[in-house]
Amino acid sequence: MTARPTGRQQGPRGRRPGGPDTRGQILEAARESFADKGFRATTIRAVAGAAGVDAALVHHYFGTKDDLFVASLEISVDPRQALALVFAPGLDGAGERLLGTVLSVWDEPENRRPLLAFLRSSLGDPESTLLQDAFIRVIFKSLRGQLPDGDAELRAGLVATQMLGLLVARYLLAVEPVASLPREQVVALIGPTLQRYLSDPVAP
Amino acid sequence: MTARPTGRQQGPRGRRPGGPDTRGQILEAARESFADKGFRATTIRAVAGAAGVDAALVHHYFGTKDDLFVASLEISVDPRQALALVFAPGLDGAGERLLGTVLSVWDEPENRRPLLAFLRSSLGDPESTLLQDAFIRVIFKSLRGQLPDGDAELRAGLVATQMLGLLVARYLLAVEPVASLPREQVVALIGPTLQRYLSDPVAP
Repeated sequence: MTARPTGRQQGPRGRRPGGPDTRGQILEAARESFADKGFRATTIRAVAGAAGVDAALVHHYFGTKDDLFVASLEISVDPRQALALVFAPGLDGAGERLLGTVLSVWDEPENRRPLLAFLRSSLGDPESTLLQDAFIRVIFKSLRGQLPDGDAELRAGLVATQMLGLLVARYLLAVEPVASLPREQVVALIGPTLQRYLSDPVAP
Repeated sequence: MTARPTGRQQGPRGRRPGGPDTRGQILEAARESFADKGFRATTIRAVAGAAGVDAALVHHYFGTKDDLFVASLEISVDPRQALALVFAPGLDGAGERLLGTVLSVWDEPENRRPLLAFLRSSLGDPESTLLQDAFIRVIFKSLRGQLPDGDAELRAGLVATQMLGLLVARYLLAVEPVASLPREQVVALIGPTLQRYLSDPVAP
Protein backbone atom coordinates (compact mmCIF):
# COMPACT_ATOMS: atom_id res chain seq x y z
CA MET A 1 0.00 0.00 0.00
CA THR A 2 1.25 3.43 -0.94
CA ALA A 3 0.90 6.18 1.61
CA ARG A 4 -1.06 9.02 0.03
CA PRO A 5 0.37 12.45 0.84
CA THR A 6 -2.29 14.75 2.25
CA GLY A 7 -3.07 17.89 0.30
CA ARG A 8 -2.82 20.22 3.27
CA GLN A 9 0.89 19.59 3.40
CA GLN A 10 1.63 19.66 -0.31
CA GLY A 11 -0.85 21.62 -2.40
CA PRO A 12 -0.84 25.36 -2.96
CA ARG A 13 -3.39 27.17 -0.78
CA GLY A 14 -3.86 24.00 1.23
CA ARG A 15 -5.60 22.12 -1.60
CA ARG A 16 -4.59 18.67 -2.77
CA PRO A 17 -3.22 18.26 -6.26
CA GLY A 18 -4.74 15.43 -8.26
CA GLY A 19 -3.95 12.11 -6.59
CA PRO A 20 -4.85 8.52 -7.40
CA ASP A 21 -8.38 8.71 -6.01
CA THR A 22 -8.99 12.43 -6.35
CA ARG A 23 -11.37 11.77 -9.19
CA GLY A 24 -13.38 9.40 -7.00
CA GLN A 25 -13.43 11.88 -4.14
CA ILE A 26 -14.73 14.63 -6.40
CA LEU A 27 -17.44 12.29 -7.71
CA GLU A 28 -18.45 11.35 -4.20
CA ALA A 29 -18.65 15.00 -3.16
CA ALA A 30 -20.64 15.74 -6.31
CA ARG A 31 -23.11 12.92 -5.70
CA GLU A 32 -23.62 14.06 -2.14
CA SER A 33 -24.18 17.65 -3.16
CA PHE A 34 -26.56 16.77 -6.00
CA ALA A 35 -28.55 14.53 -3.67
CA ASP A 36 -28.62 16.98 -0.76
CA LYS A 37 -28.89 20.34 -2.45
CA GLY A 38 -30.20 19.46 -5.89
CA PHE A 39 -28.73 20.36 -9.23
CA ARG A 40 -29.20 24.11 -9.25
CA ALA A 41 -27.74 24.78 -5.81
CA THR A 42 -24.70 22.60 -6.46
CA THR A 43 -21.64 24.53 -7.59
CA ILE A 44 -18.35 23.28 -8.93
CA ARG A 45 -16.65 25.45 -6.32
CA ALA A 46 -18.54 23.84 -3.43
CA VAL A 47 -17.93 20.34 -4.76
CA ALA A 48 -14.24 21.15 -5.07
CA GLY A 49 -14.25 22.48 -1.50
CA ALA A 50 -15.92 19.36 -0.16
CA ALA A 51 -13.41 17.17 -2.00
CA GLY A 52 -10.49 19.34 -0.81
CA VAL A 53 -9.31 20.28 -4.30
CA ASP A 54 -9.24 23.33 -6.54
CA ALA A 55 -12.28 24.10 -8.67
CA ALA A 56 -9.97 24.13 -11.68
CA LEU A 57 -9.17 20.48 -11.05
CA VAL A 58 -12.88 19.60 -11.08
CA HIS A 59 -13.22 21.39 -14.41
CA HIS A 60 -10.10 19.64 -15.64
CA TYR A 61 -11.42 16.19 -14.76
CA PHE A 62 -15.10 16.63 -15.52
CA GLY A 63 -15.77 19.76 -17.57
CA THR A 64 -19.04 21.59 -16.86
CA LYS A 65 -21.56 21.02 -14.08
CA ASP A 66 -23.71 19.11 -16.59
CA ASP A 67 -20.74 16.85 -17.29
CA LEU A 68 -20.09 16.40 -13.60
CA PHE A 69 -23.71 15.43 -13.05
CA VAL A 70 -23.60 12.87 -15.87
CA ALA A 71 -20.37 11.44 -14.46
CA SER A 72 -21.92 11.26 -10.99
CA LEU A 73 -24.64 8.95 -12.32
CA GLU A 74 -21.96 6.29 -12.73
CA ILE A 75 -23.48 4.78 -15.81
CA SER A 76 -21.62 3.37 -18.76
CA VAL A 77 -23.02 5.85 -21.26
CA ASP A 78 -23.24 9.62 -21.58
CA PRO A 79 -26.97 10.11 -22.26
CA ARG A 80 -26.24 13.21 -24.35
CA GLN A 81 -23.98 11.31 -26.72
CA ALA A 82 -26.45 8.43 -26.83
CA LEU A 83 -29.25 10.85 -27.76
CA ALA A 84 -27.13 12.39 -30.49
CA LEU A 85 -26.56 8.92 -31.98
CA VAL A 86 -30.27 8.09 -31.77
CA PHE A 87 -31.22 11.19 -33.72
CA ALA A 88 -28.27 11.25 -36.13
CA PRO A 89 -30.15 9.36 -38.89
CA GLY A 90 -33.14 11.73 -38.53
CA LEU A 91 -36.54 11.64 -36.85
CA ASP A 92 -37.68 8.63 -38.85
CA GLY A 93 -37.50 5.58 -36.58
CA ALA A 94 -36.07 7.68 -33.75
CA GLY A 95 -38.80 6.47 -31.35
CA GLU A 96 -37.70 2.85 -31.65
CA ARG A 97 -34.00 3.75 -31.58
CA LEU A 98 -34.47 5.95 -28.51
CA LEU A 99 -36.34 3.25 -26.63
CA GLY A 100 -33.85 0.56 -27.63
CA THR A 101 -30.97 2.71 -26.43
CA VAL A 102 -32.57 3.58 -23.09
CA LEU A 103 -33.51 -0.04 -22.41
CA SER A 104 -30.05 -1.27 -23.33
CA VAL A 105 -28.54 1.14 -20.80
CA TRP A 106 -31.02 0.07 -18.09
CA ASP A 107 -30.64 -3.63 -18.87
CA GLU A 108 -26.90 -3.38 -18.23
CA PRO A 109 -26.49 -4.80 -14.69
CA GLU A 110 -23.80 -2.27 -13.74
CA ASN A 111 -26.12 0.61 -14.64
CA ARG A 112 -29.28 -0.73 -13.06
CA ARG A 113 -28.38 -0.14 -9.43
CA PRO A 114 -27.24 3.49 -9.72
CA LEU A 115 -30.10 4.36 -12.08
CA LEU A 116 -32.70 2.77 -9.82
CA ALA A 117 -31.25 4.52 -6.78
CA PHE A 118 -31.31 7.83 -8.62
CA LEU A 119 -34.88 7.35 -9.82
CA ARG A 120 -36.13 6.18 -6.46
CA SER A 121 -34.55 8.96 -4.44
CA SER A 122 -35.68 11.60 -6.92
CA LEU A 123 -39.27 10.37 -6.90
CA GLY A 124 -39.51 9.61 -3.21
CA ASP A 125 -38.24 12.82 -1.68
CA PRO A 126 -40.66 15.75 -1.88
CA GLU A 127 -37.72 18.13 -1.43
CA SER A 128 -35.69 16.64 -4.22
CA THR A 129 -35.61 18.63 -7.42
CA LEU A 130 -32.77 16.59 -8.82
CA LEU A 131 -34.75 14.65 -11.35
CA GLN A 132 -36.64 17.76 -12.46
CA ASP A 133 -33.56 19.95 -12.69
CA ALA A 134 -31.08 17.44 -13.96
CA PHE A 135 -33.50 15.71 -16.22
CA ILE A 136 -34.67 18.95 -17.74
CA ARG A 137 -31.21 20.41 -17.86
CA VAL A 138 -29.24 17.49 -19.21
CA ILE A 139 -31.60 15.08 -20.92
CA PHE A 140 -34.32 17.44 -22.03
CA LYS A 141 -31.89 19.95 -23.42
CA SER A 142 -30.29 17.26 -25.54
CA LEU A 143 -33.63 15.88 -26.64
CA ARG A 144 -35.10 19.29 -27.47
CA GLY A 145 -32.03 20.13 -29.47
CA GLN A 146 -32.78 17.15 -31.70
CA LEU A 147 -36.38 18.13 -32.39
CA PRO A 148 -37.82 20.62 -34.85
CA ASP A 149 -38.44 24.08 -33.40
CA GLY A 150 -41.82 25.11 -32.15
CA ASP A 151 -43.18 21.97 -30.54
CA ALA A 152 -39.88 20.66 -29.20
CA GLU A 153 -40.75 21.29 -25.52
CA LEU A 154 -44.11 19.61 -25.78
CA ARG A 155 -42.74 16.65 -27.74
CA ALA A 156 -39.92 16.15 -25.23
CA GLY A 157 -42.49 16.32 -22.42
CA LEU A 158 -44.72 13.71 -24.05
CA VAL A 159 -41.74 11.42 -24.60
CA ALA A 160 -40.88 11.88 -20.93
CA THR A 161 -44.35 10.74 -19.81
CA GLN A 162 -44.07 7.46 -21.68
CA MET A 163 -40.40 6.85 -20.92
CA LEU A 164 -40.60 7.63 -17.20
CA GLY A 165 -43.66 5.43 -16.80
CA LEU A 166 -42.03 2.56 -18.63
CA LEU A 167 -38.90 2.80 -16.45
CA VAL A 168 -41.00 2.99 -13.28
CA ALA A 169 -43.25 0.08 -14.30
CA ARG A 170 -40.51 -2.17 -15.72
CA TYR A 171 -37.61 -1.56 -13.35
CA LEU A 172 -38.84 0.14 -10.19
CA LEU A 173 -42.21 -1.56 -9.63
CA ALA A 174 -41.53 -4.62 -11.79
CA VAL A 175 -45.13 -4.73 -13.01
CA GLU A 176 -45.67 -7.94 -14.97
CA PRO A 177 -45.69 -8.78 -17.79
CA VAL A 178 -43.91 -5.52 -18.65
CA ALA A 179 -40.93 -6.28 -16.41
CA SER A 180 -40.17 -9.60 -18.11
CA LEU A 181 -40.82 -8.69 -21.74
CA PRO A 182 -37.77 -9.04 -24.00
CA ARG A 183 -36.36 -5.66 -24.94
CA GLU A 184 -37.27 -6.12 -28.61
CA GLN A 185 -40.91 -6.65 -27.73
CA VAL A 186 -41.00 -3.53 -25.55
CA VAL A 187 -39.51 -1.58 -28.45
CA ALA A 188 -42.11 -3.02 -30.85
CA LEU A 189 -45.00 -2.20 -28.50
CA ILE A 190 -43.97 1.19 -27.10
CA GLY A 191 -41.59 2.53 -29.75
CA PRO A 192 -44.48 3.65 -31.98
CA THR A 193 -45.84 5.76 -29.11
CA LEU A 194 -42.54 7.60 -28.81
CA GLN A 195 -42.39 8.00 -32.57
CA ARG A 196 -45.87 9.51 -32.57
CA TYR A 197 -44.85 11.97 -29.85
CA LEU A 198 -41.69 12.85 -31.79
CA SER A 199 -43.12 13.33 -35.25
CA ASP A 200 -46.94 13.32 -35.42
CA PRO A 201 -48.81 16.63 -35.31
CA VAL A 202 -49.25 17.83 -31.71
CA ALA A 203 -50.90 21.22 -32.23
CA PRO A 204 -54.25 21.42 -30.42
CA MET B 1 -67.66 18.16 24.19
CA THR B 2 -69.02 14.71 24.86
CA ALA B 3 -66.88 12.36 26.86
CA ARG B 4 -66.27 9.27 24.78
CA PRO B 5 -66.54 6.06 26.80
CA THR B 6 -63.49 3.88 26.39
CA GLY B 7 -63.99 0.49 24.82
CA ARG B 8 -62.14 -1.42 27.48
CA GLN B 9 -64.88 -0.57 29.93
CA GLN B 10 -67.87 -1.10 27.68
CA GLY B 11 -67.31 -3.41 24.76
CA PRO B 12 -67.49 -7.17 24.82
CA ARG B 13 -64.04 -8.78 24.97
CA GLY B 14 -62.53 -5.38 25.72
CA ARG B 15 -63.24 -4.04 22.22
CA ARG B 16 -64.97 -0.72 21.56
CA PRO B 17 -68.31 -0.77 19.81
CA GLY B 18 -68.61 1.63 16.88
CA GLY B 19 -68.31 5.21 18.15
CA PRO B 20 -68.35 8.59 16.47
CA ASP B 21 -64.76 8.41 15.21
CA THR B 22 -64.35 4.65 15.07
CA ARG B 23 -64.46 4.77 11.30
CA GLY B 24 -61.64 7.31 11.28
CA GLN B 25 -59.59 5.26 13.72
CA ILE B 26 -59.95 2.16 11.58
CA LEU B 27 -58.89 4.13 8.51
CA GLU B 28 -55.87 5.49 10.32
CA ALA B 29 -54.86 2.02 11.48
CA ALA B 30 -55.38 0.73 7.94
CA ARG B 31 -53.27 3.46 6.36
CA GLU B 32 -50.49 2.82 8.84
CA SER B 33 -50.55 -0.91 8.24
CA PHE B 34 -50.66 -0.58 4.44
CA ALA B 35 -47.75 1.86 4.56
CA ASP B 36 -45.67 -0.16 7.04
CA LYS B 37 -46.41 -3.74 6.07
CA GLY B 38 -47.70 -3.42 2.54
CA PHE B 39 -50.96 -4.69 1.14
CA ARG B 40 -50.41 -8.44 1.37
CA ALA B 41 -49.25 -8.53 4.99
CA THR B 42 -52.08 -6.29 6.17
CA THR B 43 -55.03 -8.20 7.61
CA ILE B 44 -58.46 -6.95 8.60
CA ARG B 45 -57.93 -8.63 11.95
CA ALA B 46 -54.68 -6.76 12.62
CA VAL B 47 -56.17 -3.44 11.53
CA ALA B 48 -59.12 -4.09 13.84
CA GLY B 49 -56.73 -4.89 16.67
CA ALA B 50 -54.74 -1.71 16.13
CA ALA B 51 -57.94 0.33 16.09
CA GLY B 52 -59.25 -1.48 19.18
CA VAL B 53 -62.39 -2.82 17.51
CA ASP B 54 -63.77 -6.14 16.34
CA ALA B 55 -62.82 -7.39 12.88
CA ALA B 56 -66.55 -7.71 12.15
CA LEU B 57 -66.91 -3.97 12.62
CA VAL B 58 -64.16 -3.31 10.05
CA HIS B 59 -66.00 -5.56 7.59
CA HIS B 60 -69.25 -3.83 8.46
CA TYR B 61 -67.83 -0.38 7.77
CA PHE B 62 -65.55 -1.13 4.86
CA GLY B 63 -66.23 -4.55 3.33
CA THR B 64 -63.22 -6.45 1.99
CA LYS B 65 -59.52 -5.64 2.33
CA ASP B 66 -59.63 -4.24 -1.22
CA ASP B 67 -62.44 -1.92 -0.13
CA LEU B 68 -60.53 -0.90 2.97
CA PHE B 69 -57.50 -0.08 0.88
CA VAL B 70 -59.53 2.05 -1.52
CA ALA B 71 -61.14 3.85 1.45
CA SER B 72 -57.71 4.42 2.99
CA LEU B 73 -56.65 6.36 -0.11
CA GLU B 74 -59.08 9.10 0.96
CA ILE B 75 -60.02 10.06 -2.54
CA SER B 76 -63.43 11.13 -3.72
CA VAL B 77 -63.88 8.24 -6.14
CA ASP B 78 -63.71 4.46 -5.99
CA PRO B 79 -61.32 3.67 -8.85
CA ARG B 80 -63.08 0.36 -9.50
CA GLN B 81 -66.43 2.02 -10.05
CA ALA B 82 -64.80 4.71 -12.15
CA LEU B 83 -63.16 2.05 -14.33
CA ALA B 84 -66.48 0.26 -14.77
CA LEU B 85 -68.05 3.50 -15.99
CA VAL B 86 -65.16 4.15 -18.37
CA PHE B 87 -65.55 0.76 -20.02
CA ALA B 88 -69.35 0.51 -19.88
CA PRO B 89 -69.83 1.89 -23.42
CA GLY B 90 -67.22 -0.56 -24.76
CA LEU B 91 -63.55 -0.42 -25.75
CA ASP B 92 -64.14 2.21 -28.41
CA GLY B 93 -62.98 5.55 -27.03
CA ALA B 94 -62.08 3.95 -23.70
CA GLY B 95 -58.53 5.35 -23.87
CA GLU B 96 -59.75 8.94 -23.89
CA ARG B 97 -62.44 8.27 -21.29
CA LEU B 98 -59.96 6.49 -19.00
CA LEU B 99 -57.48 9.32 -19.20
CA GLY B 100 -60.14 11.98 -18.71
CA THR B 101 -61.42 10.18 -15.62
CA VAL B 102 -57.99 9.69 -14.06
CA LEU B 103 -57.03 13.32 -14.69
CA SER B 104 -60.31 14.61 -13.28
CA VAL B 105 -59.65 12.66 -10.08
CA TRP B 106 -56.07 13.97 -9.85
CA ASP B 107 -57.07 17.53 -10.71
CA GLU B 108 -59.47 17.59 -7.75
CA PRO B 109 -57.52 19.51 -5.05
CA GLU B 110 -58.81 17.29 -2.21
CA ASN B 111 -57.49 14.19 -3.99
CA ARG B 112 -54.15 15.58 -5.07
CA ARG B 113 -52.42 15.54 -1.69
CA PRO B 114 -53.27 11.97 -0.65
CA LEU B 115 -52.62 10.63 -4.15
CA LEU B 116 -49.25 12.37 -4.40
CA ALA B 117 -48.28 11.15 -0.93
CA PHE B 118 -49.25 7.62 -1.87
CA LEU B 119 -47.37 7.72 -5.17
CA ARG B 120 -44.29 9.28 -3.65
CA SER B 121 -44.02 6.91 -0.71
CA SER B 122 -44.66 3.89 -2.93
CA LEU B 123 -42.00 4.92 -5.44
CA GLY B 124 -39.43 6.18 -2.94
CA ASP B 125 -39.22 3.28 -0.53
CA PRO B 126 -37.37 0.22 -1.86
CA GLU B 127 -39.17 -1.90 0.73
CA SER B 128 -42.62 -0.71 -0.24
CA THR B 129 -44.66 -3.12 -2.27
CA LEU B 130 -47.83 -1.14 -1.73
CA LEU B 131 -48.08 0.30 -5.18
CA GLN B 132 -47.23 -3.03 -6.79
CA ASP B 133 -49.60 -5.06 -4.64
CA ALA B 134 -52.43 -2.63 -4.31
CA PHE B 135 -52.17 -1.37 -7.83
CA ILE B 136 -52.10 -4.84 -9.27
CA ARG B 137 -54.72 -6.11 -6.89
CA VAL B 138 -57.23 -3.30 -7.03
CA ILE B 139 -56.69 -1.29 -10.19
CA PHE B 140 -55.23 -3.93 -12.46
CA LYS B 141 -57.85 -6.49 -11.53
CA SER B 142 -60.59 -4.04 -12.46
CA LEU B 143 -58.85 -3.01 -15.65
CA ARG B 144 -58.10 -6.56 -16.75
CA GLY B 145 -61.70 -7.51 -16.11
CA GLN B 146 -62.75 -4.94 -18.69
CA LEU B 147 -60.42 -6.20 -21.40
CA PRO B 148 -60.79 -9.08 -23.83
CA ASP B 149 -59.22 -12.32 -22.65
CA GLY B 150 -55.78 -13.35 -23.80
CA ASP B 151 -53.86 -10.10 -23.93
CA ALA B 152 -55.55 -8.44 -20.95
CA GLU B 153 -52.46 -8.61 -18.70
CA LEU B 154 -50.18 -7.15 -21.33
CA ARG B 155 -52.64 -4.42 -22.31
CA ALA B 156 -53.17 -3.43 -18.69
CA GLY B 157 -49.38 -3.32 -18.23
CA LEU B 158 -48.90 -1.10 -21.27
CA VAL B 159 -51.63 1.26 -20.06
CA ALA B 160 -49.86 1.35 -16.71
CA THR B 161 -46.57 2.46 -18.30
CA GLN B 162 -48.18 5.48 -19.96
CA MET B 163 -50.49 6.35 -17.10
CA LEU B 164 -47.85 6.10 -14.36
CA GLY B 165 -45.41 8.18 -16.37
CA LEU B 166 -47.99 10.85 -17.06
CA LEU B 167 -48.91 11.08 -13.37
CA VAL B 168 -45.24 11.23 -12.37
CA ALA B 169 -44.36 13.85 -15.00
CA ARG B 170 -47.47 16.02 -14.59
CA TYR B 171 -48.09 15.89 -10.83
CA LEU B 172 -45.01 14.59 -9.06
CA LEU B 173 -42.19 16.16 -11.08
CA ALA B 174 -44.28 18.93 -12.67
CA VAL B 175 -42.35 18.68 -15.95
CA GLU B 176 -43.40 21.54 -18.22
CA PRO B 177 -45.27 21.98 -20.46
CA VAL B 178 -47.01 18.72 -19.47
CA ALA B 179 -47.83 19.95 -15.96
CA SER B 180 -49.70 23.02 -17.19
CA LEU B 181 -51.53 21.59 -20.20
CA PRO B 182 -55.31 21.77 -19.93
CA ARG B 183 -56.81 18.38 -19.22
CA GLU B 184 -58.54 18.25 -22.61
CA GLN B 185 -55.26 18.71 -24.41
CA VAL B 186 -53.59 15.93 -22.42
CA VAL B 187 -56.51 13.68 -23.32
CA ALA B 188 -56.19 14.60 -26.99
CA LEU B 189 -52.43 13.98 -27.03
CA ILE B 190 -52.12 10.89 -24.84
CA GLY B 191 -55.59 9.33 -25.06
CA PRO B 192 -54.80 7.74 -28.45
CA THR B 193 -51.79 6.00 -26.90
CA LEU B 194 -53.98 4.38 -24.27
CA GLN B 195 -56.54 3.46 -26.91
CA ARG B 196 -53.83 1.79 -28.96
CA TYR B 197 -52.69 -0.20 -25.93
CA LEU B 198 -56.29 -1.18 -25.18
CA SER B 199 -57.43 -2.23 -28.62
CA ASP B 200 -54.67 -2.44 -31.25
CA PRO B 201 -53.00 -5.79 -31.91
CA VAL B 202 -50.25 -6.47 -29.36
CA ALA B 203 -49.14 -9.96 -30.35
CA PRO B 204 -45.41 -10.07 -31.14
